[in-house]
Amino acid sequence: MYLKDLGEFGLIDQIKDRFKNMVVAGVEGIGDDCAVIPIDNTRSYVVTTDMLVEGKHFLLDKISPGELGYKSLAVNISDVASMGATPRFSLLSLSVHKESTSEWCEEFIKGYHKLSAEHNILLIGGDTTAADSGHMTISVTAIGEVENINIKRRNAAKVDDIIAVNTLLGDSSLALRMMLEGLTVEPSLMAKHNAPSPCVKDGIWFGTKESVGAMMDISDGISSDIRHICNLSGCGATIFTHALPSSDALKQRCREMNWNEYDFTLSGGEDYGLLMTINSSKFESLKREYFGTLYPIGVITSGCEVQYINSECKTVTQKLGFNHF
Amino acid sequence: MYLKDLGEFGLIDQIKDRFKNMVVAGVEGIGDDCAVIPIDNTRSYVVTTDMLVEGKHFLLDKISPGELGYKSLAVNISDVASMGATPRFSLLSLSVHKESTSEWCEEFIKGYHKLSAEHNILLIGGDTTAADSGHMTISVTAIGEVENINIKRRNAAKVDDIIAVNTLLGDSSLALRMMLEGLTVEPSLMAKHNAPSPCVKDGIWFGTKESVGAMMDISDGISSDIRHICNLSGCGATIFTHALPSSDALKQRCREMNWNEYDFTLSGGEDYGLLMTINSSKFESLKREYFGTLYPIGVITSGCEVQYINSECKTVTQKLGFNHF
Repeated sequence: MYLKDLGEFGLIDQIKDRFKNMVVAGVEGIGDDCAVIPIDNTRSYVVTTDMLVEGKHFLLDKISPGELGYKSLAVNISDVASMGATPRFSLLSLSVHKESTSEWCEEFIKGYHKLSAEHNILLIGGDTTAADSGHMTISVTAIGEVENINIKRRNAAKVDDIIAVNTLLGDSSLALRMMLEGLTVEPSLMAKHNAPSPCVKDGIWFGTKESVGAMMDISDGISSDIRHICNLSGCGATIFTHALPSSDALKQRCREMNWNEYDFTLSGGEDYGLLMTINSSKFESLKREYFGTLYPIGVITSGCEVQYINSECKTVTQKLGFNHF
Repeated sequence: MYLKDLGEFGLIDQIKDRFKNMVVAGVEGIGDDCAVIPIDNTRSYVVTTDMLVEGKHFLLDKISPGELGYKSLAVNISDVASMGATPRFSLLSLSVHKESTSEWCEEFIKGYHKLSAEHNILLIGGDTTAADSGHMTISVTAIGEVENINIKRRNAAKVDDIIAVNTLLGDSSLALRMMLEGLTVEPSLMAKHNAPSPCVKDGIWFGTKESVGAMMDISDGISSDIRHICNLSGCGATIFTHALPSSDALKQRCREMNWNEYDFTLSGGEDYGLLMTINSSKFESLKREYFGTLYPIGVITSGCEVQYINSECKTVTQKLGFNHF
């Protein structure tokens, strides 16, 4: 069978299955945004890794080296923050082209360092290769630290919880589509795709809130990501598509181009905000207390279905989010 | 400047330089086989990452998927063990070809799992991508655990220490050269290259021995690796080339082909044994106590030169070890 028929999550299941008999007390492995390994009875390290492959995750002529360095760390830090953890360390492996220049690498490192310095994240290791041909590949491992009581997982959604996000959705994937179609993309929109800001302060803050049940970062698009929460929490979800928050730029562009907004807000991916479920009786007070903006987009339901309902209470069919295969 | 002119270690210096002002107490970053991050006052985690790029680190038609899975973890575990640490966890990122089969992946995972199970190393995370074209790339992060008093570093060599290795040298790089020249390679030799055994039990054991000063794994070849120990310990070294241990197969093949043995034993790389410096007054007793074989190959000297001397006391000039650029 070709791998593309097995699919990304099929392959991950194959890997999980092979390791299912190996269990270590106090350690949480594959399945959440990060793995959890113990420090002591009250604290843990969380660990995550993401690989960015040229042509699949980025196009070299569409992103500056500084942005690429920044983004490579950002997508990992986003996973750390979504567990409620404080990012501490990173490791960077870089396979560049033989004909790459040291200036390109210096700009890349400058961008990587910029985000590291913003959050005091120490680079503690890595690996470098110059390949004769083929893709550039960047692999980052990020390590965070968290009080065990503040760890947020995907499996903690409860029926009647309100589903919320803390960011406008779809700008990143809209910028990508415009870029790929050769359209002019305004810098502010482009930055959403090329240099996303991970919600570090937000993730740590939500980690301390008991009213927050499940939490994860929005990387593959709401329609794919909410499935992970539902599968691991044993519940369903209803998403109100008219409540999905999006920028004026996105609305306007979709009208102009006759594009379907949901392709970006629901299935676009790379938003790198936080997707949360919140105890409904505490939602209003949490929203008031939060220093950012909290957008309710749906509710957790019993059963296991995820349905999308628009302002006319009609069911919307929606394709799934980004697949790396 | 092209990256190839800057070189691998030039790039690493560029990266280290950018981060030189960020220091966290109790944390050891770039420079050794692993980074060290604290658990408590007596124990630490060690972390390392290695990237294997098709065409640079392996040729898809010269290694079975099972061997490649095994080796991808082995090269990382070797770094963990060389710090005196017990390997505990790993993360695996895999960028495969779109046309790869699920059977290939299953064999790869089986090989990766085989070594994991041998040492009870839990796979706790990773990432998967299927790229449309280009190289296959594998990135592994390994985490070990160690008592702080047992951590062995590259910077602890002392003048008059005996330099020793615990493995025959050069078989791996000999197998690679034979393979690349289209010669038939006997399976036992091929296995040294395609499925190297990391010295886990040995590394942990040497970690507990006070008489062992500096320790690292032999990945780029003795001539390159001893330089790291000398640079970080502020010393020099004399290597006795006639004392470099090598297999009968290597000696015979080099005679037959008129190849220079030192190209394999000194500069070959990928031996994945341990390179150590040992207090000279304790060497004999340590050698007797050790359950494997310890080969003395030189002495640590004052100054900063590394020199190679043969049985006739003549200086041997030797090219440096493997460079990934």
